[in-house]
Parts: sequence; C-alpha cells; structure tokens
Amino acid sequence: MPDDIGMPSVAPTIDMENWVCPMPLRDSPNIVMGHGGGGAMSGELIEHLFLPAFGAAAEADMGDSAVITLGGARLAFSTDSFVVKPLVFPGGSIGDLAVNGTVNDLAMSGARPMVLSTAFILEEGTALADIAHIAKALGTAALAAGVKLVTGDTKVVDSGHGDGIFINTAGIGVVDDGVDIRPQRAAPGDVVIVSGDIGVHGVAVMSCREGLEFGTTVVSDTAALNGLVAVMLATGADVHVLRDPTRGGVAATLNEIAGVAKVGVSLDERKLPVPAEVRDACGLLGLDPMYVANEGKLVAFVAPQDADRVLAAMRDHPLGARAEAIGCCVAEHPGMVVARTALGGTRVVALPAGEQLPRIC
Amino acid sequence: MPDDIGMPSVAPTIDMENWVCPMPLRDSPNIVMGHGGGGAMSGELIEHLFLPAFGAAAEADMGDSAVITLGGARLAFSTDSFVVKPLVFPGGSIGDLAVNGTVNDLAMSGARPMVLSTAFILEEGTALADIAHIAKALGTAALAAGVKLVTGDTKVVDSGHGDGIFINTAGIGVVDDGVDIRPQRAAPGDVVIVSGDIGVHGVAVMSCREGLEFGTTVVSDTAALNGLVAVMLATGADVHVLRDPTRGGVAATLNEIAGVAKVGVSLDERKLPVPAEVRDACGLLGLDPMYVANEGKLVAFVAPQDADRVLAAMRDHPLGARAEAIGCCVAEHPGMVVARTALGGTRVVALPAGEQLPRIC
Repeated sequence: MPDDIGMPSVAPTIDMENWVCPMPLRDSPNIVMGHGGGGAMSGELIEHLFLPAFGAAAEADMGDSAVITLGGARLAFSTDSFVVKPLVFPGGSIGDLAVNGTVNDLAMSGARPMVLSTAFILEEGTALADIAHIAKALGTAALAAGVKLVTGDTKVVDSGHGDGIFINTAGIGVVDDGVDIRPQRAAPGDVVIVSGDIGVHGVAVMSCREGLEFGTTVVSDTAALNGLVAVMLATGADVHVLRDPTRGGVAATLNEIAGVAKVGVSLDERKLPVPAEVRDACGLLGLDPMYVANEGKLVAFVAPQDADRVLAAMRDHPLGARAEAIGCCVAEHPGMVVARTALGGTRVVALPAGEQLPRIC
Repeated sequence: MPDDIGMPSVAPTIDMENWVCPMPLRDSPNIVMGHGGGGAMSGELIEHLFLPAFGAAAEADMGDSAVITLGGARLAFSTDSFVVKPLVFPGGSIGDLAVNGTVNDLAMSGARPMVLSTAFILEEGTALADIAHIAKALGTAALAAGVKLVTGDTKVVDSGHGDGIFINTAGIGVVDDGVDIRPQRAAPGDVVIVSGDIGVHGVAVMSCREGLEFGTTVVSDTAALNGLVAVMLATGADVHVLRDPTRGGVAATLNEIAGVAKVGVSLDERKLPVPAEVRDACGLLGLDPMYVANEGKLVAFVAPQDADRVLAAMRDHPLGARAEAIGCCVAEHPGMVVARTALGGTRVVALPAGEQLPRIC
C-alpha cells in the first residue's frame, strides 16, 4: 500500500515563456529585502513564483509545517533557515533560534517535536571559536526543548559570499491521534489568545544592530513552546489554531489566519501585552509592536467554551504567565483584522507588505 | 511509551574554556574552504567541534542520513545545503542537485524517499527569473524522483552577504522491514561495485567555473538513485553498504567506509569506469578522477554470493548500465584503501584533507 502524504497537489506548472514577476514587483525584476519579511511580498513570491515553478511536485500550500502520514505514523515536518544579524544578541543567538524556530513550527501543528537536522553554511574566515559558541548554544537549546540532533551537513562558501554563519534546521514531530490544529479551523466565536509580551525579540535584535544601537534592557524571548502547547492540549480543550508570530509579528500572523480561514479577527488593542520598554523602543524606531517579531510567543484560536480553561493552564506555565485573551474570531470582514484602539476607535491592522526589520531570524 | 530514536548519545559537552581548534588547524583559528570538502578536515570539524558542542543533544555520529523510529514508523531523515557555483552548469543546476542530493542520501540508507522540505536563502538583487528557473528545475527533479515538496521557507540576505541562491533540502524516507544498510556492515569478502562513470559532475561544474572555462562535452551526472537502489534490493541480495561518492569522490567515500567499519578496501584501478574526457580534463586540472565529485553514482558493498546478481540488475537499469565491480573488502590494512595500478604496482588511496574543487554541490 503506498504511503499517504495527506494533501492533494494543487499547483500548476509555471509557464516560463509567459511568466511575469510576482506582483507588486513587476517594475522590479529582482529580489528585494521585503521578500524575506513574512508579509504580503513573501506570500506573493510563494504563490506566484515557487508554487507554479514546483508544479505538481508541490503539495498544497507548502506552509510552515506539513502534517503527513508516513509508514503509518502521523508526522509534522518543518524547515527554517536562520540568517539573523548579529549572530549573538541580548538573550540569545542564531543557535537558539535555529532550534526554537523549528521546534515551534512543529508545535504549532500540535506535534510533539522529536528530532532535528542541522545544516551550516559557513563563510571562509569565520572564527572556529564563534562557531563553537553558536553550536554549543544550539545543543543546549535542543536539550532544553527535548529534541535530538540526528543528522547534519556543513558547507563552506568563499569570503564575501556568505555572512559568517547561516543555519538551516528541519524537524520531525509526532502528531497524536485526534489532534487537528491548523489555520483553516479558525471559526467565528473562537477566542484569540496571545501567550505573553509581544515585540520583544525584534527590539532585542535591533538594539544591537550595527549603526542602530540604542540602550534597552529588553532581551529576546526565544524559547521552545512545545511544553506550553502540551499543557494547553492536556486540558482537553478544542484548540483550533496555533501560530508563532515571528516575522511580521502578531499582525502578519493574524492576517494570515484570517485569510486562510476566510474569517475576521476583532482585537481589543488595550488587551495586548506590550512591555513599556518595547513601546518606548518602537516609538524610537517608528514601529508598531504588533508588527515586530517574537520568537517565544504563540497565538491561539480556542473554542469559546474552552477559552478560560486554556488561559488558566497557560498562566500556570512559565512561558504563558502573561497570557491574555486579546480578541475574538468573527464572521464579519473576512480576511481582515480590525482592532479597537485605546481611544475607542477602530483601525484595520493590515498585512505588512515587506519587512520593517530585516534579518530578525 | 516514548518514541525510540534508535541510537545512544555519545558526544561529550564541549569545554569552551579549554577548547582548542580542531586539528590540523591549530595554527589557523578560522574556517577555510577545505572544511567544506567532505574530507579529513570536514570530519575533524564534526568530531572536534560540532559533536562536543552539541553535547548530549547529538545522536551518535550525525551522519549523512539517520535511521530513526517515530510513531512506530522506521524512517530515514537527511539534510543537505547546496552552494554550487555556478548555479547552472552543463547537465543541471542547483535545483536538480537540491533534490537529487537529499533523495540519494536517503536512498543510501535503503529508504524509499517520500517527502522533501525546501529552504531558500536568496541574495537581494537576484533576478526573479533566475529563481523561477531554478525552482522549476527543482520541481521537475522532484517529480522525476517521485518525492513531494511539502514544506518550505524563504529568507533574503542583503546584497554582498550571500551568493545568489543557496538551497537547503531535508527529506524523509520509509525504511522497509528487514532493510539494514550502513557503513558499519562492510565486511571482508564484500564485493565493491560502482554504478558507472566517475568524476563526471566535478568536471562538468569546473568546465564552466568563471576564470577556469575549458572545452569539454562532459555533462553532470546529477540523478536520483532511488530507482536504481529499488532494483538492487528487489533481487533479495544482502547489500551491506550504499554510499553516493559526492564531495571528495570515490576516494573519500571508500576511506570513510573503511574507517567506520575498520576494514580494508582493495581496488583494481583498471576496473574503474573513467570516461576519456574526464581523464583528459583531470590531466589538465591536475586532479585524480577518484577524488572528483559524482552526483548520480553510488558505491555498493555486497555479500560475495550476491554480487553477480546485483551487478546484473544494476546493468539493466539506465543509471547502472556501466556498473563495475572495482574491488573487494579485506581484513588487511583496516581503515585503508589500497589500489592495484594499471602498471601492476599498488598505491594507497588516501582520504583527501580538504577540497580540490570547492563549491561543487
């Protein structure tokens, strides 16, 4: 019996002859930084370039994490490359992100992350001591997350054709029977919960970015969320959607969910946990904390009757102590996120186009 | 019951205080191109830097492909990053390599490759049309290999901090019951088989490398070998070891197997299938074809009573038509590869230290 990998193939083959650059970049035939921002431009690159080019080889939407059945096992599979600059920042390093980012993508499918691969692209001339420091952080983060590093690869590129250390990790997790967590399950009535303070990671990285240093005591929130997800699921609650709001922040994540599930999201901006220091730094940089990356937070859509139970369980976990219900899922304005502001008005929280803070992960 | 991921943890934690650079580089504290060559320096980087740094999080030797049991399924898991230069070369592109390289790593564990992840690191300013061309080659190769692309990631780095397109793929395959193929199983008496002409990929890439162009009709052998492995296993033969001789060529691969299994390998150099054009190009470049990379060839160690059967099956497959038995595994000179030369003498085929041809895959 052939293995069933779950989803139908949907992508048409690209027609190179008649192919045009993905919108909104028909005037610019080249990659720009915004294509890596996790916002609208990233989405267009996937929709208009990668999926048509991959053709029938691509499964469905090739999202952050795929749930597949192989050899009778229900598995989640995910990959991320990490190009954060600088490599070490307040509260963590590219080694921590490389573990926690992929572990979190798996956990957001409701999977128990089990194993990771690690692939390094090293630039000629990079100090071995720096690589050892990063590799040690990576190993420590893997131990903390309870995942094993089982296979790896190392490539070296000539000086001036890389940037010190790039890391890719891919991971596999086991999805237990009955678990079905994906953006498509967002439904009107769901309570939208965020697990804690937002905007922290982006501010921490920018605070030490060359040419931009500013004084702050904010440190990255990079953390593996599989333990927090486990306590949420242990309540027996009907958790519909989980997502870690990384690139593009809470705004990009909520827009993505609203778009995929064709629902609206209604937020109460006053409920958003934003630390004063993040608010100050964002003021300085001209940013909205809702658009700033997090690396140790999740957004959950939970069936209304279960929301209080989930919130209580989250608050009992160290990584969810400051969890808040920030709004709800609605049938109105499908695909759109609308926030009630502190002043009592409303505003549309749009999907960011490109990237406010490049190379944040 | 916890999932069993198969292998014991062995790596000690790195002691950063007393840590010294891996030999033979104590005089050079930085990464050099040779660390990416798949030879002795790559091995030392893994043994003396990555494994100690990863500590208890690392499983065993973190080889090309891990065989693990997850959710009751026996799976192979592998990853590779691709940094080949130029991106398009005679006979293929980085898109073909990204599929075939990972598919082959899985197949060399005896697995049936099923799904791949794809992660792109794009340099700002890279033409979208070039990316589409590469992505289309990748999709076409995946279709040909019979694997699905199920999850992906895209990152963008600023101009001058990448090199056009880097691709990482990770893959999962299913290992059927009874299949046990790994370097440790090489045993004295085994017949050593190579599936066809060697040195082809490396010569093809170098022939169009900037500043080094030379005239040749050699085209890369990049191909997915899972179909060839399937016909070999279908014979019911006891195949002990499979390996694709990529970076460092047949010489590095045979040395690696000899080292891991603590056996000797005795080759008959006259039996090695080396096309005249590869021989000519290697003469021009001052290279030995045994050290030049292949991307569509495998080396097999087969129990002696089954060797003829396997060789016949391979020759009936398009990718094994020029397969040859090139030598045998011996109890003498463990860890060492010795070749009988065309002139009747013998020579040691040493493990290459670094890399003769950088960025070949």
